[in-house]
Amino acid sequence: MTRNEALRKLREARVGRLATVRPDGTPHVIPFVFALVEDGNELRVYWAVDDKPKKRADIQRLDNIRANPAVEFVIDGYDEDWRRLWWVRASGRGRIVTTDDERARAIDALAEKYPRYLESPSAAALVAIDVYRLAEWSAS
Amino acid sequence: MTRNEALRKLREARVGRLATVRPDGTPHVIPFVFALVEDGNELRVYWAVDDKPKKRADIQRLDNIRANPAVEFVIDGYDEDWRRLWWVRASGRGRIVTTDDERARAIDALAEKYPRYLESPSAAALVAIDVYRLAEWSAS
Repeated sequence: MTRNEALRKLREARVGRLATVRPDGTPHVIPFVFALVEDGNELRVYWAVDDKPKKRADIQRLDNIRANPAVEFVIDGYDEDWRRLWWVRASGRGRIVTTDDERARAIDALAEKYPRYLESPSAAALVAIDVYRLAEWSAS
Repeated sequence: MTRNEALRKLREARVGRLATVRPDGTPHVIPFVFALVEDGNELRVYWAVDDKPKKRADIQRLDNIRANPAVEFVIDGYDEDWRRLWWVRASGRGRIVTTDDERARAIDALAEKYPRYLESPSAAALVAIDVYRLAEWSAS
């Protein structure tokens, strides 16, 4: 898979799985929805943490990111024909978005990909993931 | 979601995403196929590392597990109607299977779920994940 193909898949992926590390050193992984922003060669991903109080796992991720900003996420295609398997993995550093300017950009990017964000743009927190490494693999 | 429902989903899931922690403290995440084995209240998951030399990411996972056995994986259902989202997350300890007896059990469990393993049962390594915690969530 070429880098361009990997980027296309990152733009289009509807869901990814995000790993962080808990303060006790154990890994934490959960599905998340995200929007990719390309700024020249820089890749950034935005993720909105829902403000529903029940999603404790999301809050855990925020705590993890504050304590250890190292994150990694993967998108992939599963198929019973294993010759068609592929994945794209992004390593990055997570941070809570704090400026109004970047919050607006993040919401725009998310709303463009997921129209649901137009209806309820509120979010407990917006997280930016600054990607420093992409890895891609396909079986064929 | 009840525990029984979570277990059913774990039995049936065709793919999960597995997180480990690299020796440098950064998280590592990748899709994997697995088979669940239930032994009374004990839950164990088997995963076969492919013997294709190209899958360096698999080898990374083995190194990670040897250095830090803490692993976590998630299965989930994505749907554009977010009221239908769900996930099941399992925290466990990974170990390389070493006895012939357990290797045979692992291959049996995998082959029952993925007939492909009947054709080519060879695997560079078999990993057991002893699950000590399940968490489940659904949007509705």
